[in-house]
Amino acid sequence: MNEDFKVTPWEVSGEIDYDLLVEKFGTRKIDADLIDRLSRYAEPHPLLKRGVVYSHRDMDWILDRYEAGEPFYLYTGRGPSGNTHLGHLMPWIFTKYLQDTFKVPLYFQLTDDEKYLFNDNLELKDTRDMAYQNLLDVIALGFDPELTKIFIDTEYIHSLYPLALKVAKRITFSTARAVFGFDNSNNIGSIFYTSIQAAPAFLGSVLAGKNVPCLIPCGIDQDPHFRVARDIAPTLGYYKPALLHNKMFPGLQGTDKMSSSQPNSTIYTTDPPKLVRKKIMSAFTGGAVSVEEQRKSGGKPEICSVFKYKLYLFEKDDQKLAELYDRCRKGEILCGECKKGLADVIVPFIEEHQRKREEAKERVEEFMLRDCGGT
Amino acid sequence: MNEDFKVTPWEVSGEIDYDLLVEKFGTRKIDADLIDRLSRYAEPHPLLKRGVVYSHRDMDWILDRYEAGEPFYLYTGRGPSGNTHLGHLMPWIFTKYLQDTFKVPLYFQLTDDEKYLFNDNLELKDTRDMAYQNLLDVIALGFDPELTKIFIDTEYIHSLYPLALKVAKRITFSTARAVFGFDNSNNIGSIFYTSIQAAPAFLGSVLAGKNVPCLIPCGIDQDPHFRVARDIAPTLGYYKPALLHNKMFPGLQGTDKMSSSQPNSTIYTTDPPKLVRKKIMSAFTGGAVSVEEQRKSGGKPEICSVFKYKLYLFEKDDQKLAELYDRCRKGEILCGECKKGLADVIVPFIEEHQRKREEAKERVEEFMLRDCGGT
Repeated sequence: MNEDFKVTPWEVSGEIDYDLLVEKFGTRKIDADLIDRLSRYAEPHPLLKRGVVYSHRDMDWILDRYEAGEPFYLYTGRGPSGNTHLGHLMPWIFTKYLQDTFKVPLYFQLTDDEKYLFNDNLELKDTRDMAYQNLLDVIALGFDPELTKIFIDTEYIHSLYPLALKVAKRITFSTARAVFGFDNSNNIGSIFYTSIQAAPAFLGSVLAGKNVPCLIPCGIDQDPHFRVARDIAPTLGYYKPALLHNKMFPGLQGTDKMSSSQPNSTIYTTDPPKLVRKKIMSAFTGGAVSVEEQRKSGGKPEICSVFKYKLYLFEKDDQKLAELYDRCRKGEILCGECKKGLADVIVPFIEEHQRKREEAKERVEEFMLRDCGGT
Repeated sequence: MNEDFKVTPWEVSGEIDYDLLVEKFGTRKIDADLIDRLSRYAEPHPLLKRGVVYSHRDMDWILDRYEAGEPFYLYTGRGPSGNTHLGHLMPWIFTKYLQDTFKVPLYFQLTDDEKYLFNDNLELKDTRDMAYQNLLDVIALGFDPELTKIFIDTEYIHSLYPLALKVAKRITFSTARAVFGFDNSNNIGSIFYTSIQAAPAFLGSVLAGKNVPCLIPCGIDQDPHFRVARDIAPTLGYYKPALLHNKMFPGLQGTDKMSSSQPNSTIYTTDPPKLVRKKIMSAFTGGAVSVEEQRKSGGKPEICSVFKYKLYLFEKDDQKLAELYDRCRKGEILCGECKKGLADVIVPFIEEHQRKREEAKERVEEFMLRDCGGT
């Protein structure tokens, strides 16, 4: 087993062994039975069927409660350290599928405090500004404004703080150190921070005045926060939050995670369409060293970022995807054609998203949850 | 030197060596020159002349700035873990003297979050309720409503939190552990908390939009919070807060600090006057074992809680205090008479305070600083 990788809420590096993470974190893999059960409500999302959303905690329990007439709410979020990229959109697209399927509320947290505390180069003003940029992308995806409430930590802290205190009182430094790997050099804000990320897992219950199940769709890297939140939930008198974990969205240069630190490997929602096409056309693929070689021995779709992009988000048709895989394997399709095919899907997607993102600027107040009405 | 005592923001025990604290904490003793300088503004408060307010940081600088036309603001506070007692009133009475003398604003912080985080037996609701009880005592002392702004942490967190984050980012766990003695068993809220207590030391500057000197009158036990705040102030671009430290108000049973854990040693502002008298009449004194012995060898005013109460707060006339000391020493006055004399001053004081405290209930909104207008 490959153990030479790191997955924490603040660092993802190396070649991730996702099965090993399930084992290490103590989560459960999503199996055919669970997908079957979900298919009673709607056609399972490709991300589920293709194993991108691949792990969970208590998803069966969420459905049990739902079927017993006790609907859940969704909670997810974003650390606003830079512009939104496709890697961020993926879990939000999946979250929207859940909201559309179950018609449930969504609380969306923007953790400007977190990104300030964990990044030496960012001021609080930067992360708060970026939070506003990021939330336009959330709105642009078409979430239901009646059911969706977005908040920025420093703006919604009046409501979050009492809950965060109750969480914080139940977490020792010892636990935080073991779970997050803190040491003496960490600042005291970063040590406290997990309480703020845990708070929305109980906020729906506080606001409803009764216990409401909470389902958190998020990257597997965020699981440590909620593992701790789950441990303390009973002493707070709340349900443990349930989770659905996705794998990291791959980078265009063959890395396991699309990352803001590698701009060329990353497609931002604000990139000009021409740049998007250019980035895709220079993507890392599973092609052979020469056309001749590839025609002869075929390509390797399993390591190809272009194939992964189609698998993760941009080829919804299972049949077509299987055909593409086969044709690549057999050397019947070359990388240039394949990249062009991907660009022809992503570029219009980005153009459309950018249109909706512009419209979102007029709709911010429909979605915002604020303590004090306005900034 | 007696080192068998402990003074931290959360624990004061043993017989305190106040001179040693000045040395350990690195503060400066208030000397005759500083008292002389203060006497240019007003008759120095007895607490200053008698060495109860006995230590400082940068008080000369505060006066330099003041004289150069740059007035300061005052900041003090209270941890609302129980009812207010005389030990709490003492620094507030001194703070009022400073406000009356210099006509400067006061920010008064009620740390309901702190007391919740540091006390296993208190819920957040308890400490918030107690904050309201305590602030009535502040208002009852007659602070200028135009210049005085009171806030409760969980209610004013929208304004405090961004500032607390900036403080927290600059304090490592290593520093917090060294200064406050934290270990692995401390909860992560308590580790973060000092950021919240430091924030008001800079709040006056934030609200004024320019650097404003801050003077904090407080018990010497609170110095560690502000020592850290002073260390990081320059990197925040703010002045270091200055401090005036008082000794702990003694208990009626001879201990160094009036403490809520010893109800009989403590006079609460809400005690019925009869109970106040009873507590005083059973106080620990410096009397001898018998009347005969005391008439012969005299009493020991230096260890007598009744004498200390007169010294600290309840005998403003230096001459009379000196005479009392002498007469006690010579065995000319017995403890019963002396205790009755103290009760005859404190009981009317408490009765008057309770009247003003009732009136204060109608005046809370004049003083409150809130994020969101009302609770």
